[in-house]
Amino acid sequence: MGRIITLITDYGWRDHYVGVLHGVILRIAPDVRIVDVTHAVEPHDITHGAFVLRQVLPWYPAGTIHMAVVDPGVGTDRRILVAQYGGQFIVTPDNGLLTFVHRDLPAEEMVSVENRHFFLSKISSTFHGRDMIAPVASHLANGVRPREFGRVTDRLEILPISWEAERTSSGLCGQVIYVDRFGTLVSNVQVKQLESIQEERGNVSVFVNGENIGSIKSTFSDVPIGKPVAFVGGSGNLEIAVNQGRAVDRFSPDAEVCIEVR
Amino acid sequence: MGRIITLITDYGWRDHYVGVLHGVILRIAPDVRIVDVTHAVEPHDITHGAFVLRQVLPWYPAGTIHMAVVDPGVGTDRRILVAQYGGQFIVTPDNGLLTFVHRDLPAEEMVSVENRHFFLSKISSTFHGRDMIAPVASHLANGVRPREFGRVTDRLEILPISWEAERTSSGLCGQVIYVDRFGTLVSNVQVKQLESIQEERGNVSVFVNGENIGSIKSTFSDVPIGKPVAFVGGSGNLEIAVNQGRAVDRFSPDAEVCIEVR
Amino acid sequence: MGRIITLITDYGWRDHYVGVLHGVILRIAPDVRIVDVTHAVEPHDITHGAFVLRQVLPWYPAGTIHMAVVDPGVGTDRRILVAQYGGQFIVTPDNGLLTFVHRDLPAEEMVSVENRHFFLSKISSTFHGRDMIAPVASHLANGVRPREFGRVTDRLEILPISWEAERTSSGLCGQVIYVDRFGTLVSNVQVKQLESIQEERGNVSVFVNGENIGSIKSTFSDVPIGKPVAFVGGSGNLEIAVNQGRAVDRFSPDAEVCIEVR
Repeated sequence: MGRIITLITDYGWRDHYVGVLHGVILRIAPDVRIVDVTHAVEPHDITHGAFVLRQVLPWYPAGTIHMAVVDPGVGTDRRILVAQYGGQFIVTPDNGLLTFVHRDLPAEEMVSVENRHFFLSKISSTFHGRDMIAPVASHLANGVRPREFGRVTDRLEILPISWEAERTSSGLCGQVIYVDRFGTLVSNVQVKQLESIQEERGNVSVFVNGENIGSIKSTFSDVPIGKPVAFVGGSGNLEIAVNQGRAVDRFSPDAEVCIEVR
Repeated sequence: MGRIITLITDYGWRDHYVGVLHGVILRIAPDVRIVDVTHAVEPHDITHGAFVLRQVLPWYPAGTIHMAVVDPGVGTDRRILVAQYGGQFIVTPDNGLLTFVHRDLPAEEMVSVENRHFFLSKISSTFHGRDMIAPVASHLANGVRPREFGRVTDRLEILPISWEAERTSSGLCGQVIYVDRFGTLVSNVQVKQLESIQEERGNVSVFVNGENIGSIKSTFSDVPIGKPVAFVGGSGNLEIAVNQGRAVDRFSPDAEVCIEVR
Repeated sequence: MGRIITLITDYGWRDHYVGVLHGVILRIAPDVRIVDVTHAVEPHDITHGAFVLRQVLPWYPAGTIHMAVVDPGVGTDRRILVAQYGGQFIVTPDNGLLTFVHRDLPAEEMVSVENRHFFLSKISSTFHGRDMIAPVASHLANGVRPREFGRVTDRLEILPISWEAERTSSGLCGQVIYVDRFGTLVSNVQVKQLESIQEERGNVSVFVNGENIGSIKSTFSDVPIGKPVAFVGGSGNLEIAVNQGRAVDRFSPDAEVCIEVR
């Protein structure tokens, strides 16, 4: 098979949108492999899409093309970007979806898409995923180079989100930035921040919305069923779960997460 | 890869039905590419399935096989059809799923499937998608011609739905026929009807359940956040949305949509 | 294309987990075909996963690899198994997911996975699907033989569920073990048990939570719309449905299902 195109959208599975995207891609690039990462991003929730994009990127081989489309500004003059990180490509509206990838990785090239030659011949004002972004991703898969789509740029929209916890006199204080299907809370306390505190200052306690839930464990089964637990998750951030339960129901989707040295 | 088989069903993603379909197809036609368009058609909602089928068809290449299965009459003597439109094939129970495709496109061939040779050897009375429709789609992908499955027919079930708005003394009056994931309302006011009114009679106002929401815009971001807006959507019909909100919550899933000349 | 890897998980579609699994698999085994059977197993519901795995297995060709991951004990020392049935392979935590397959089919080989050489180099304590199970499945697809992953074993966890109804003085009594998307109730009354009763004792009536819903029909459209009906479903078990309705709403997800000779 040819290259991989992954899809991250808020289009949902119940309508025709996903099927239309696949059709458009397969007519232009019949040999690609398409991976439906998710179409269940909360409608218009750019942070959600940005988080998923950041999490999947490291697991794909060079040459992969990621199409991330959460686009409340469709039809306005927001730009479309082709950005290259680690030999992979992301095609996306310029509305913040690159925030977390861009903060962590050096962009190798970033192009503002302007060449209408690569779009569908008729462009709607409400479905640019179909008319512009999927065609650009497909032509990339066919070997068109990023610069052929437009002009090189070095600016992009970044979401106003604290991706890192803040250092306090007694430790760290951050907040939940993502809630997953299991109701697990992903905080912005990063593993490198934790390690620095622990090395300097010793063991810590974790406070969620002010409640002390104890030290940092390795996994949720380190506590009894029904109890809350903090651990470093697969995302590389401190996560709060309830063993076989839902932390979001016990705390809240925007909970404060603080670390205090004992 | 071989031909494309798309799947449009109400089987849902939580059970084994989708996995079973893929297995049946891959045993008969190991080289096909399967596209899961949707399995989230509302259970037994033939109109929903018919709308999705109509929307995806134009985007696929000739030779594609679409399997549309929303089948409240499974186990009765309703027929199974293989129908050809624009060089593509649709395999489906004859219960109205072809309504919107058939109204817009000329059928090149239509066959009532009768040749049990192409079914699985054991046929249940509740899962014809697995036992009959998937095998027929797979054999089509392997190059069997439609007429080999049964006898040519020219009748089919059509849903009693107004796919077009009605002309009134002051403009047009129609209704919502589909609500998508974003809560956007798709009406049966067709773009060609609108164009005809606008050419003859000038600018128009749109009334949803009697409320004047103004003229027709190009996209939902042409109005402030939270405001309702009418535009011609990707479906080719007049759609009603709320900018970054849900029109279905503000109006209703069966709202009346009228156009009046100013 | 290469071998088939199917995925049965409770990871859900809204997060990054599914996309990460695909990436990990495609980096190790770039030619496999991946089938997303379901990621909508109820979180931590091993019985649900075990039922889906049992239902899809018979429909896949020899050589297929099924990855079943519902893993509330991730991070503990529960084992990971590679089990072979009918020339197909299942890679799964040893927590009961094999229950229904193992009861019905002879295991050709069962190996407890211990060889860390086949895992990702860094193993988290919360995402073994990514770090251990997907890599093992991918290496199997590349031709590694089960015994290369660890040591042969003959014990495994089995769920304490009655997969068969009990014989009573007047017939059979069992219960619902699965509820599908349509609200249809799948009972543990097996077709072979029914046939034995019917041959010996004649026609039967079906009682659901004590209510007589009549004899066994062939399909749900054998009763008027809105009425309950019992039939032998695609699963090979007695199922209870409501024609164009939801049996689970009329009865209950754990309903008792009894058969009495008339």
